[in-house]
Amino acid sequence: MHALILGAAGMIGRRLTAALVESGRVGNDRLTALTLVDVVQPEVPAGFDGPVRAEAADLSRPGAAEAALAERPGIVFHLAAVVSGEAEANMDLGYRVNLDGTRLLFEAIRALSEAEGYRPRVVFTSSLAVFGQPLPPVIGDDFIPAPASSYGVQKAMGELLLADYSRRGFLDGIGLRLPTICVRPGKPNKAASGFFSGILREPLAGLPAVLPVPETVRHWFASPGAATNFLLHAAGLDLSGLGTRRTMTMPGISATVAEEIEALRRVAGDKAVALIRREPDPAVMRIIETWPEAFDTQRANRLGFTADASLDAIVAQHVAEHGVKL
Amino acid sequence: MHALILGAAGMIGRRLTAALVESGRVGNDRLTALTLVDVVQPEVPAGFDGPVRAEAADLSRPGAAEAALAERPGIVFHLAAVVSGEAEANMDLGYRVNLDGTRLLFEAIRALSEAEGYRPRVVFTSSLAVFGQPLPPVIGDDFIPAPASSYGVQKAMGELLLADYSRRGFLDGIGLRLPTICVRPGKPNKAASGFFSGILREPLAGLPAVLPVPETVRHWFASPGAATNFLLHAAGLDLSGLGTRRTMTMPGISATVAEEIEALRRVAGDKAVALIRREPDPAVMRIIETWPEAFDTQRANRLGFTADASLDAIVAQHVAEHGVKL
Repeated sequence: MHALILGAAGMIGRRLTAALVESGRVGNDRLTALTLVDVVQPEVPAGFDGPVRAEAADLSRPGAAEAALAERPGIVFHLAAVVSGEAEANMDLGYRVNLDGTRLLFEAIRALSEAEGYRPRVVFTSSLAVFGQPLPPVIGDDFIPAPASSYGVQKAMGELLLADYSRRGFLDGIGLRLPTICVRPGKPNKAASGFFSGILREPLAGLPAVLPVPETVRHWFASPGAATNFLLHAAGLDLSGLGTRRTMTMPGISATVAEEIEALRRVAGDKAVALIRREPDPAVMRIIETWPEAFDTQRANRLGFTADASLDAIVAQHVAEHGVKL
Repeated sequence: MHALILGAAGMIGRRLTAALVESGRVGNDRLTALTLVDVVQPEVPAGFDGPVRAEAADLSRPGAAEAALAERPGIVFHLAAVVSGEAEANMDLGYRVNLDGTRLLFEAIRALSEAEGYRPRVVFTSSLAVFGQPLPPVIGDDFIPAPASSYGVQKAMGELLLADYSRRGFLDGIGLRLPTICVRPGKPNKAASGFFSGILREPLAGLPAVLPVPETVRHWFASPGAATNFLLHAAGLDLSGLGTRRTMTMPGISATVAEEIEALRRVAGDKAVALIRREPDPAVMRIIETWPEAFDTQRANRLGFTADASLDAIVAQHVAEHGVKL
């Protein structure tokens, strides 16, 4: 099967590409070819014998989706998006990429579906940002998406389009609301959620980290490996029982900042924990306190999606990949 | 205040126009001017002294929203939509009018908002069609919209846009999910829901009516008068406490077909009931059995929206307006 990854140059896109190449499989089929697309040029992965087309393209431009679909990939991983902060700061850009880009993709698939019976599996990444206050302590599968950001609105609209184009038979879609990724690799950034990873990643590298919120703050996490596994698992599922509800929240670990700190202490000791500097930031706290704390992900569980084993396992994955440099 | 009605030539649009003119008020203000727009030429109402602009326009065409907003109406009633069956049969038309038309309207308001601080009240009519199976017997305000039709998807997307443009301060929006209107005046039509009104309206006019479903079928109703009152009430509300949840289901009467028939019997006797011919239609039943039966509309109730008093009151309203010709 030919796999297309939109957003292939991002953190999850690169991990997904590597995982597909390493297994040589996608879903229940052999991986025969790859198309990798992103706004920046994606890297061609090493160690894959089949044809790889890697291209920079803006999927919100007319014709870009058609070009990406030229070889009629049997599966489309649609990870491409303008991130939350950028979609909030630049409303036109967010709607153009996250809404119009998704709609242009689905319309391009529909045209091929009507012309020649094309019907790919589409795996769409959505977000916890579809949920807004007031929220219950544990959010079930039937809870209303009522986003508090333009990014969340655009993702919720993408979920609705995915459901409608699936219901009409143009594609066979599944949407995954990914937990907040932890430990996110790379440099500290200005995302409000950055500290959730930063207070683990930076001390493990012997660097100071800032904690802007109280230790009682609770949130919903998945490791980069778990998030990649959700995408791989979604590729091979029988979706015929989903009805019109094509998107579901992925299982995660519900943990407080205090629990993160204790997990850090267990793997790297008090000297690592001492690198966390408490600098309460009311602006960050106002954002974070509107976020969900935990989910009851029965639908995803029934389909066999599995969370990380524990917060310790999340930290261990990061240590295995990046080491401890303390 | 200047009021703009989009979809002014429809059944609700005409009732709303008449109610505004009759009271001479809109929300908490005096009605000073009217702009009436629809795809067909709206009628100019009698008995209104202020300026009235009534125009046929396709709101999905660029520039149409800007033209409708030329006088900067303080309130916009956005009732314009391609109906459910048409949106399902003609996918392009449904998305163009119901999604793109709504987005073009909100974008036109945003441009005026950014240029000159314009911020109208927007009253948007949504639909129970945003809900799809599986449904609980009574649906609460936090229940997930998961539509089973393209029309429902387009309305749910409109709700999300309304919330985002309100949150960003470009408009002050409220969305109303109207119950199924009963007794809908006019001729029998091919809508799957047509019989809910038909089994009352036709016998009251001395005409036969077809009942395609069992008498145990239960659904959620509002009279044309109650629906109009929801719009009038929404015009004057303080919406500052709504947060990002700008759309809510309107209160209604949950009634079975059997209860409709008994209400008909009370007002027009056995000879009216005898005009109902039972012709079970599995195709209609398959559609109807996916529809919601009842709602717990706490948010709307708290804001002072009120349902019809009873099914008898719904029938009485129709009789008062159209008489009994039996």
